[in-house]
Amino acid sequence: MNHSTSLPGKVYLIGAGPGAQDLMTLRGARLLAQAGVVLHDALVTPEMLELCPQAVKILVGKRCGQLSTAQAFINKQLVDQARKHAVVVRLKGGDPMLFGRADEELRALEEAGIAVEVVPGITTALAAAAATQQPLTKRGVSRSVAFFTSSTAPGETEQTAVPDCDTLVQYMGGREAMATAGRLLAQGWRAGTPVVVIENCSRPEQRIVRLPLSQLALGLGDKQGPVLVMIGEAMAMRMQQAPDALIAPLARRA
Amino acid sequence: MNHSTSLPGKVYLIGAGPGAQDLMTLRGARLLAQAGVVLHDALVTPEMLELCPQAVKILVGKRCGQLSTAQAFINKQLVDQARKHAVVVRLKGGDPMLFGRADEELRALEEAGIAVEVVPGITTALAAAAATQQPLTKRGVSRSVAFFTSSTAPGETEQTAVPDCDTLVQYMGGREAMATAGRLLAQGWRAGTPVVVIENCSRPEQRIVRLPLSQLALGLGDKQGPVLVMIGEAMAMRMQQAPDALIAPLARRA
Repeated sequence: MNHSTSLPGKVYLIGAGPGAQDLMTLRGARLLAQAGVVLHDALVTPEMLELCPQAVKILVGKRCGQLSTAQAFINKQLVDQARKHAVVVRLKGGDPMLFGRADEELRALEEAGIAVEVVPGITTALAAAAATQQPLTKRGVSRSVAFFTSSTAPGETEQTAVPDCDTLVQYMGGREAMATAGRLLAQGWRAGTPVVVIENCSRPEQRIVRLPLSQLALGLGDKQGPVLVMIGEAMAMRMQQAPDALIAPLARRA
Repeated sequence: MNHSTSLPGKVYLIGAGPGAQDLMTLRGARLLAQAGVVLHDALVTPEMLELCPQAVKILVGKRCGQLSTAQAFINKQLVDQARKHAVVVRLKGGDPMLFGRADEELRALEEAGIAVEVVPGITTALAAAAATQQPLTKRGVSRSVAFFTSSTAPGETEQTAVPDCDTLVQYMGGREAMATAGRLLAQGWRAGTPVVVIENCSRPEQRIVRLPLSQLALGLGDKQGPVLVMIGEAMAMRMQQAPDALIAPLARRA
């Protein structure tokens, strides 16, 4: 569907979730099937894009350490595409409102007078908690959870403080989680505090590693895919909990 | 589908999200359509239960200040139902691993030798961020977000500390958010720190209230539905942001 430039379309910022196609919401799937164009991150999986066979697909992702498209250029593309298509989808890994640079995109669209709607997605921390069967909160153990990142964007100085919460979840936590562990140990966290690391959450190549905080402080080695690190007493395994290899079949189709 | 008692079924803990039917995941919707029985909270909406017309539906919800079913009884029902049905769904408002008492249910099922799988859901904080078009993290402003609750369960003492994060989201935050605001002001948070309160997120009766932290400290008045309170500089409105009444149509069907 094409519209004249005097009739701009609507832009939907949609959370793709962690990767598995069937962790998309019904609302997101319906809008993807209607989209004229889908601008997606590098973290969005090919199986997710199968939900919009009719749409023009444009890769606009930024990935740490890889060739990146400037945010200003993404913003401009969103505005331009809304002048060509009735339904424009900006598809973002995880949830758009959490570490998703949504603020910049919302501002750009508002300044151009283009209608926008946000559709939430399954954030990786919750998919990881489900995949590892490890609740983030637990009665008498954890009543708060922090989602944070330490990766530094241009123009930002590195954050040295770690949030003060019962359970900590560090996004994009490959190298940075090592520094987090060091800081927590220095603050008096127990060396044996359980840690769960999940790489490529919900994808066929998903990997789960369990280790104590003292070991996390020594580093994680090389990780290829997106890594999430969960730290806290709530990460302790239950007495009869299934080993990670046995739980939740992966990459199942809807 | 009924199985003999020697062949127990599988239990799926599924996140229902905040209420709107189309915020269910594709995976959750598929499993709901296969379920022999669905044990659901009081917070699960009637429209969500339309996704499982074939299933026996059992209300097992606990709601603050209302008649509650003891957790031990819910656990026993889950085990009993898994001996009668191949697919048992435990449907929980929001996400099962966040303030969902999943730990108790997982333990009970593991002790009974029953297979279990967790399907994540859209947690209310992310649906609220989407509905209000208010990102929880923002470059240069907020790089961490805490989800917490102060409601006290039997056997727990009241938590007095508030998590230390850039953005704070208090679940079940009606009365308790007033105390949170008082503590934050005492810690030196700015009186004008923006606060967004969302009641009945994603439902037809959704209400959004914006106020400064100093006003939150005076209380919110009576709230009928589930209330979520989001606090922090990331909650500031953008210059050209649409008024809340104009954004995101509610209770749309898939």
